[in-house]
Amino acid sequence: MELCTVTIMPDGARAQVPRETSLFDACAQAGVEIKGACGGGGVCNQCLVKVSPRRALRIEGAGSLRPEQIEAGYVLACKCRVIDDVVVEVPSASRVLAHRVLMEDEGNLKAYPFAPILSVGECQLTPPSLLDNASDWDRVKAQLEGDEPKASLGVIRNLPGALREGNWQVSLSMIDWGDGPKVVRVEPGSTRTFGLAVDVGTTTIALSLVEVETGKILATRGSYNRQGRYGDDVISRIIHCSQPGGLEDLQRAVVGTINALIDEVVDAAEISREWIDGVVVSANTTMSHLFAGIDPSYIRLEPYIPAFTELGPFEAKELGLKVNPQAEVYLLPSVASYVGGDVVAGVLVSRLHQGDELSLFVDIGTNGEMVLGSRDFLVACACSAGPAFEGSGITCGMRAMEGAIEKVAIIDGEPQVQTIGGKPPVGICGSGLIDCLAKLQDGGIIDRTGHFVGDWERLRPSAEGREFVLVRAGEGGCQGDIVITEGDIKNLIRAKGAVYAGMRTLLKALELDVDAIDRVIIAGGFGQYLNVEDAIKIGLLPDIPRSKYEFLGNTSLKGARAALLSREALAEASRVAASLTYMELSAGNTFMDEFISACFLPHTDLSLFPSVIGKEVLAR
Amino acid sequence: MELCTVTIMPDGARAQVPRETSLFDACAQAGVEIKGACGGGGVCNQCLVKVSPRRALRIEGAGSLRPEQIEAGYVLACKCRVIDDVVVEVPSASRVLAHRVLMEDEGNLKAYPFAPILSVGECQLTPPSLLDNASDWDRVKAQLEGDEPKASLGVIRNLPGALREGNWQVSLSMIDWGDGPKVVRVEPGSTRTFGLAVDVGTTTIALSLVEVETGKILATRGSYNRQGRYGDDVISRIIHCSQPGGLEDLQRAVVGTINALIDEVVDAAEISREWIDGVVVSANTTMSHLFAGIDPSYIRLEPYIPAFTELGPFEAKELGLKVNPQAEVYLLPSVASYVGGDVVAGVLVSRLHQGDELSLFVDIGTNGEMVLGSRDFLVACACSAGPAFEGSGITCGMRAMEGAIEKVAIIDGEPQVQTIGGKPPVGICGSGLIDCLAKLQDGGIIDRTGHFVGDWERLRPSAEGREFVLVRAGEGGCQGDIVITEGDIKNLIRAKGAVYAGMRTLLKALELDVDAIDRVIIAGGFGQYLNVEDAIKIGLLPDIPRSKYEFLGNTSLKGARAALLSREALAEASRVAASLTYMELSAGNTFMDEFISACFLPHTDLSLFPSVIGKEVLAR
Repeated sequence: MELCTVTIMPDGARAQVPRETSLFDACAQAGVEIKGACGGGGVCNQCLVKVSPRRALRIEGAGSLRPEQIEAGYVLACKCRVIDDVVVEVPSASRVLAHRVLMEDEGNLKAYPFAPILSVGECQLTPPSLLDNASDWDRVKAQLEGDEPKASLGVIRNLPGALREGNWQVSLSMIDWGDGPKVVRVEPGSTRTFGLAVDVGTTTIALSLVEVETGKILATRGSYNRQGRYGDDVISRIIHCSQPGGLEDLQRAVVGTINALIDEVVDAAEISREWIDGVVVSANTTMSHLFAGIDPSYIRLEPYIPAFTELGPFEAKELGLKVNPQAEVYLLPSVASYVGGDVVAGVLVSRLHQGDELSLFVDIGTNGEMVLGSRDFLVACACSAGPAFEGSGITCGMRAMEGAIEKVAIIDGEPQVQTIGGKPPVGICGSGLIDCLAKLQDGGIIDRTGHFVGDWERLRPSAEGREFVLVRAGEGGCQGDIVITEGDIKNLIRAKGAVYAGMRTLLKALELDVDAIDRVIIAGGFGQYLNVEDAIKIGLLPDIPRSKYEFLGNTSLKGARAALLSREALAEASRVAASLTYMELSAGNTFMDEFISACFLPHTDLSLFPSVIGKEVLAR
Repeated sequence: MELCTVTIMPDGARAQVPRETSLFDACAQAGVEIKGACGGGGVCNQCLVKVSPRRALRIEGAGSLRPEQIEAGYVLACKCRVIDDVVVEVPSASRVLAHRVLMEDEGNLKAYPFAPILSVGECQLTPPSLLDNASDWDRVKAQLEGDEPKASLGVIRNLPGALREGNWQVSLSMIDWGDGPKVVRVEPGSTRTFGLAVDVGTTTIALSLVEVETGKILATRGSYNRQGRYGDDVISRIIHCSQPGGLEDLQRAVVGTINALIDEVVDAAEISREWIDGVVVSANTTMSHLFAGIDPSYIRLEPYIPAFTELGPFEAKELGLKVNPQAEVYLLPSVASYVGGDVVAGVLVSRLHQGDELSLFVDIGTNGEMVLGSRDFLVACACSAGPAFEGSGITCGMRAMEGAIEKVAIIDGEPQVQTIGGKPPVGICGSGLIDCLAKLQDGGIIDRTGHFVGDWERLRPSAEGREFVLVRAGEGGCQGDIVITEGDIKNLIRAKGAVYAGMRTLLKALELDVDAIDRVIIAGGFGQYLNVEDAIKIGLLPDIPRSKYEFLGNTSLKGARAALLSREALAEASRVAASLTYMELSAGNTFMDEFISACFLPHTDLSLFPSVIGKEVLAR
């Protein structure tokens, strides 16, 4: 097999790859992950790299590269095959940088009685004799109290050796998902047992290693989801599944990410990975499918049908997780294609379904997922906000990674920005975009339809209408101008309009008004860093007393942990999923009407935003 | 990798094998299986082959080969490594020939109500819509009556594709082991489902492909157990497990044998192997362990403890069976280390546990396994008869393969023999040995202690005492003299004595006499070809009216089929296993006393053999 050397600049990292490897994969092998929002479609231009010599590549397409970019040696990494030794310059804008991962995972679980699904039982057995010659497994079972446990083949395979090595004293790690105990591990002498709570998000993955005896979190780690190379959003990942081996790529990527994080937490806690006996995964419906290796294609196609909502548990070895091979893995149940186990986890953690008051749970990502309800009813919907809040489809948009602008102030038309990690600005992430929109509005730079008004120094013409230069090349170490265009603003307005319209549609179905909401629970990474005042100002969130807003952090991760630590919470998750009524917004006209009304700043019906009207600078 | 060519003579078969391959394995790769009674220990001398040139081999041992054998170019195949091209002459005595496998598998199951564990359900589903957007799996479950079914990951992975390919008409293959239904396969349109009943014996394996809807047997096939290369009996196989990779060798060998038989039955019945959705395996305890890949080491060591008695079901893919990967495999439960699922199957099929009369179930192989009982009680024991009845440890003994002498007549000291398949005689199998012993006794050639008496033309001196030449080299195409020695006779007397003593011990424990037995059920291949009159004459079986004897054929295979076709039979198997009281013969002195008394022809207590005394020629 002929190998080619790929050298990454300015890092100097190298990899030897077989001829015809995609340049995208070659860079990953050299340790430099490149952005791939469109999943190799040659559309998003995020994987732009500069190569030399050009003839070392077989170029299969140039996407929408401009002639001067091609002239300067730029190519799209996803559209090139390596056929000879090549040097690749990877600009920072094309790199997957350290993601901000929401890992807060404390508190608020006391609501559920402490009754972990995992336990360790020590057995001191009477050694067998000719007159007491029960089999090893029968001997163990006779010693255990309660229901007769099951065991997997792997456990029985280890049993004879463990019993004799431990001189008839063994420890059994047992799991009970509510349908009776199962022995998942047997060890000579004594052992300990640990659980893993995992939040599999489309962009990031976070997990906590939990000492189940005490409920203590030993370590929490997070990173970007390696599936990112196959596309930024669930849709491009689902499309990748239609390629041969595509589903396997995605399953391997998510499991690979989790396994790398497991390496980190077991190192941090100084335990053996073999002691992890139970795993609860909370994920959106598409991520649940991909994690389990189940084709998610029909999630994307009308009428949007998932393969399953509740399934499992499975043995860890069936999924490739590097823990005890007989550990059991359970996916929190989902409700519909766009309301997943992560939302169910959110309800579980917020206890929305147990309260007398009317609560609204909101998790905004590519989709705005919402649950409205109380102890009496639960309705949910998902509105495709589009990927604008995740920085996709926005000229200088980006994920919440190092260097992303997350806060914006504009004084007399002059912007000031704050970036994640204080790094030189690279682009703008979701919370920065909302901030920016609100400040442009406040400063009278845009009108209620999102068009630029007046004449400001930072405004300049662009291909489509005008654009506002937020950071100029060179300012604060910025490599190129960071702008927001009228097209970007239009996208953002549509995104925020979709979320607000979804909420209104839920309320309308119940003949309720915005004022009826007693509590708004903001979940997830985007929500955590959101400026509520700004979000209300642009009409993303309802204009109700700010004291009704509550931030619960990573409720997906917390919900997974709750299910590990409380059998009642686990059972409750199934009940919540079963009792949630899913409203498909594309059925009927209400949502579309509400959406059109919401595509203004803040809304066509200003009476819905009383506190904003008072402050708003009416541009015309 | 350097390859050497191994040519087998006189066949002319060839194989290319990596240098350092054992000659034993090399012959197998060329398609010629060599006997390996001792499992590669260099002890049994059964793998004797003639090689040229000798320097093409690295010879690691010569076992007990005589100098003249070495001179003539003979080696032990298990003790040589191939290091160059070599020609190997394999004598027929060293070959594994076509085994006689007991495959009769008809009738007698009507006792259990027909209620197969497998079923196919066709579903015509309403296609989903925006307002009816249940998940694929929820949609299927809603259509099914009865308890909510489970499903394995593999089934859900196939579900979305099958539903759409079948245009929302699918067939589900379901299995129910008594703990609720589980979907094991989903197919677009319609499908059929089949079960496999498997009898895994130490020497031979037989299986039946069963159409579960009708209970019809579509095909039955059998062959020798490929584990034979690792030793003839369970003990040498267990010893092989202590070598690195030994357990895997044995698991692969048994599964390989079964897979080859599956190839045959699916071809014969012209069905897809993927339609086999359930497998019931009946095996002795060691075979159950090896099939499941569980270390059987402690079965061999006092106090003889198996790892499990009841376990599973497992998915077929976990064991490597080439059927539907999600098919479920269940092992009939065993009772103790030497009373396995095959004995439980025997009780099930004979309905011994349901009768008012006192029945004795006997299955003789390496061990004599016995069950005595009625609807009121069940006791079982296993007496290590030793491998004499399987031809092992007997100078010219062999398994029941082509060319084995199975019947002997001796008139005036001159023997006449009949071989399996009418082939030239190669050796003597179990039924032939019993026949031979009885006829030597009848003819006054041996006395009650098993010593040769008188002066017969066929008698000649041997290394230990004298030997009787049953067939002379050249007679009927025989390649070498076939003899029976005084040592052989001693071994046979010990073997038959152990079986009789086991039976007497069971009776004594219940304070019963031989006359109390109402029915003797003879099971298994050895029993099937046994001449009862001869067996009674030598004191192997009790001297009671011949009308009480009944032959049930391969009750192990029949029992597996009964469990496939009747959930009641399946449940009954567990109840039988649980209610069988196992008597460990090595505990206490009764068995040893009985054994010593039984080491005469037919017994020291002649009053136990009234009909024999009448006929016996008293030699002294």
